[in-house]
Amino acid sequence: MTTMSAQQTRLKIRSGNLDGPTANLAAGHVQANLVALPREYALDFLIFATRNPKPCPIIEIVDTGTEAKRSAPGSDLRTDLPGYRLHVSGKHVDSATDARTWWKEDFVSFLLGCSFSFEAAMMRAGIPVRHQQSGCNVPMYVTDLPCEPAGKFSGPLVVSMRPIPRQQVKLATNITENFSHAHGGPIHIGDPSRIGIRNLTTPDFGDAVQIYEDEIPMFWACGVTPQIAIEMAEPEIAVTHEPGKMFITDFTDKDP
Amino acid sequence: MTTMSAQQTRLKIRSGNLDGPTANLAAGHVQANLVALPREYALDFLIFATRNPKPCPIIEIVDTGTEAKRSAPGSDLRTDLPGYRLHVSGKHVDSATDARTWWKEDFVSFLLGCSFSFEAAMMRAGIPVRHQQSGCNVPMYVTDLPCEPAGKFSGPLVVSMRPIPRQQVKLATNITENFSHAHGGPIHIGDPSRIGIRNLTTPDFGDAVQIYEDEIPMFWACGVTPQIAIEMAEPEIAVTHEPGKMFITDFTDKDP
Repeated sequence: MTTMSAQQTRLKIRSGNLDGPTANLAAGHVQANLVALPREYALDFLIFATRNPKPCPIIEIVDTGTEAKRSAPGSDLRTDLPGYRLHVSGKHVDSATDARTWWKEDFVSFLLGCSFSFEAAMMRAGIPVRHQQSGCNVPMYVTDLPCEPAGKFSGPLVVSMRPIPRQQVKLATNITENFSHAHGGPIHIGDPSRIGIRNLTTPDFGDAVQIYEDEIPMFWACGVTPQIAIEMAEPEIAVTHEPGKMFITDFTDKDP
Repeated sequence: MTTMSAQQTRLKIRSGNLDGPTANLAAGHVQANLVALPREYALDFLIFATRNPKPCPIIEIVDTGTEAKRSAPGSDLRTDLPGYRLHVSGKHVDSATDARTWWKEDFVSFLLGCSFSFEAAMMRAGIPVRHQQSGCNVPMYVTDLPCEPAGKFSGPLVVSMRPIPRQQVKLATNITENFSHAHGGPIHIGDPSRIGIRNLTTPDFGDAVQIYEDEIPMFWACGVTPQIAIEMAEPEIAVTHEPGKMFITDFTDKDP
């Protein structure tokens, strides 16, 4: 499965034969969060992304049509993710594996980098990635760190968490710092209460994972952050990915 | 003069006591190109900048008011540059040292990185910067390299040129590659005809400079590029800086 090409994986998802988290799929390919919004909200959202590059690194902007021509020729953003969320007035009101019925002609779509992209590099370096070992979704938490607002878009930073063996914390930091298009280095290492997280066993998105003795929780900015910003901005309609169920691009870890 | 703080320099420009190129002013501070456009053009322009990060590295977006709150608290974008250009339907129709009468309330302003920012670092490393030695403006040329379009914004890449002693070409490359917010490494080294420049003695903007024996012309992406894109997009009105007469921010070369 991990050797399946990005394009093949997208087609398998499109055909409805794959609807789980994408963390271990098409390894080494850049994965992306999706935010699709009516054009009238797109400027403020793009300013928000530009001001908050750690949670919102821009991989591609699809301003006409539904094909990510640069990062995934032949793709269709409405069908090629395993899961979608429909937001009405900012509220997540529905989920589906196909977004065609929700899609509006004037949508501008944003593909934002995802930490799954650097997990392949971590594993190559011998760093365990717990949620992949456990076959579940990465745990994600809402912090008390504010994003820089833009127009109506504002809200706290959301982070993903990976427990890392103490002696590999520095290595994990160094590796991820090189992935500026995938959230870059960690936002915080160690005590979750320092960034407003009360309980690691109850993530706000995704699944809890076990933290072994002598492991340190490490936190990276997360592409679910804009979903909270959408809640605040309350656009009439927006479509995003289901957390953990990403868009897989043709870009490899070596591309920009 | 070179030790005058960025804020003091802006105030001196605002008071009308300084209207020349800014290349050697407030050394070590990040300088920026200005593009101010009606809000309805701002999304396409920001997508254009995002798709062409070498000519258009974003330092700050001022989406309300005329103060660059992040990069230059207390500044006024309408008065703090030594020279402005008024564009009507894309055409440069007027120049002035004050843009207040041209300014529209719904303008969104973009500050884009400038190669002057890395010149201080080049000089610290002992690399001569000819236009500063000569007390003139840096020479700029329109190339035949196309930018990636966005909406109505399109056009060729504009570059600035500096003649560099052959044995320092690698050093100049290495230094400038670290300035991703100031156009980064060179676009081209050597033969100008390879990027569509016919005659180095007749720059499209700025002033010609002498190239000494054993010097190689090096070309960097230039923040005048968006002025050509504005010509193509033909917004009713736009305000930009006079080439070479930049906005001086409080950011230092060490800031992002």
